[in-house]
Amino acid sequence: MAQVIEISDPADPRLDDFRDLSTADRRPDRPGGRGLVIAEGVVVVERLLASPYPVRSLLGVRRRIEVLDEHLAGIAVPAYVASAELMAEVVGFHLNRGVLAVADRAPQPDLAGLLGSARRLAVLEGVGDHENLGALFRNAAALGVDGVLLGPGCSDPLYRRSVRVSMGHVLRVPFAQLEPWPSGLDLLRANGFWVAALTPKGSAVGLADAGLRGERVAVLLGAEGPGLTDEALAAADLSVRIPMADGVDSLNVATAAAVAFYAIA
Amino acid sequence: MAQVIEISDPADPRLDDFRDLSTADRRPDRPGGRGLVIAEGVVVVERLLASPYPVRSLLGVRRRIEVLDEHLAGIAVPAYVASAELMAEVVGFHLNRGVLAVADRAPQPDLAGLLGSARRLAVLEGVGDHENLGALFRNAAALGVDGVLLGPGCSDPLYRRSVRVSMGHVLRVPFAQLEPWPSGLDLLRANGFWVAALTPKGSAVGLADAGLRGERVAVLLGAEGPGLTDEALAAADLSVRIPMADGVDSLNVATAAAVAFYAIA
Repeated sequence: MAQVIEISDPADPRLDDFRDLSTADRRPDRPGGRGLVIAEGVVVVERLLASPYPVRSLLGVRRRIEVLDEHLAGIAVPAYVASAELMAEVVGFHLNRGVLAVADRAPQPDLAGLLGSARRLAVLEGVGDHENLGALFRNAAALGVDGVLLGPGCSDPLYRRSVRVSMGHVLRVPFAQLEPWPSGLDLLRANGFWVAALTPKGSAVGLADAGLRGERVAVLLGAEGPGLTDEALAAADLSVRIPMADGVDSLNVATAAAVAFYAIA
Repeated sequence: MAQVIEISDPADPRLDDFRDLSTADRRPDRPGGRGLVIAEGVVVVERLLASPYPVRSLLGVRRRIEVLDEHLAGIAVPAYVASAELMAEVVGFHLNRGVLAVADRAPQPDLAGLLGSARRLAVLEGVGDHENLGALFRNAAALGVDGVLLGPGCSDPLYRRSVRVSMGHVLRVPFAQLEPWPSGLDLLRANGFWVAALTPKGSAVGLADAGLRGERVAVLLGAEGPGLTDEALAAADLSVRIPMADGVDSLNVATAAAVAFYAIA
């Protein structure tokens, strides 16, 4: 059972994991920082508690900690209760979600295991925007994608903003780095996947006509704007596109991913 | 030809349309405010210049105004050039997009005209979030939706943030209010549309099995969270759903809309 502890001093060292989250050079979720995983809000904290990530502690206003009561029953971590004002002082900004949890990282499943069990994957190149990456994980979780492989130029899915935008689904959908790039894509093929590159290019096959439904498919996605590199496009088995109206350049990468995930489900 | 005018005084009254955009009670894009349409960034400004909205003036750093040169050739409006610092002082925040344009509103096409010519529509209930609304217009534009009808509780698509998130597509996709609600949906039926309510309810038909492809379809969408009201669901011809993985509540409304637009295209 989580131990509920009242905190009245913002300098209390037990809150150090939560300190100054928005100050780039001090926040614990930065590369080179402490690499902790931060969950914000009741729904995301619930998903963190249900995940393999070892939770270290929670911090919230009383009302939010109480809402989490049944989820806290089985775990032995401190749940610090404080006023909204004290929380804002510690964290460095006003939290309208009223509760945070912090966890250590956990090992991700190894690539071989993931490739063996997954039926549908997303493979990303250069998706560096934290919000897009988080939204993409949310869409992957909703639409039955079993894992996400990260090529070069992707940001850390466990970055605080990605965790929040994903609604905590980065904590559920397994991910792994794919190296070397793009020749690592051969590994997918060796495991029976079709590697389908999503691109707006007119020469690509329409998603609905590509015959991917029901197959083992890895959807290869690049960042909005630059898109996939020529090397990644060349390494794919085929290029597919979402039929797009005239005068519209592209969809947001997470949205395009959702359409592709739906189309191959 | 637009007249390029250097501005060196932040108090210059010619910049009043651009003043204090982030201060809620003074910004011109608020209901009760002046109702001007604000475009930010080169791409969105280009779309504004190509739209029926009468442009009043532009404000930008020299480099950005120069990029817009060919688009400005045919129009007789002032293009104010200023430093980034002066712009920030006038607007009230730093603009990393470097250029703004302001326009008056233009009448939207009447509902009867829109219903007569459209083949696919989105109909929204309670979509009050400006970013979701903007993203939804972007997806509508990309995926061939001919217009958006706004039921109760929707925010103003021409609000500055919606314009920006839509990448300017709110300026291209026609929209209209639909009243009374939900009985106004009868008008759609009278014009040959199937009104398909998108809902996560298990009793709804899977999107791919609903036989909507190629038909005249109006997709009825509610806000993430509350979803559609019972009245709206009852007024639809059928309910459709996106097959969703276990443990995932919903997609973002603009993302769900994109999947639905793709599925009926």
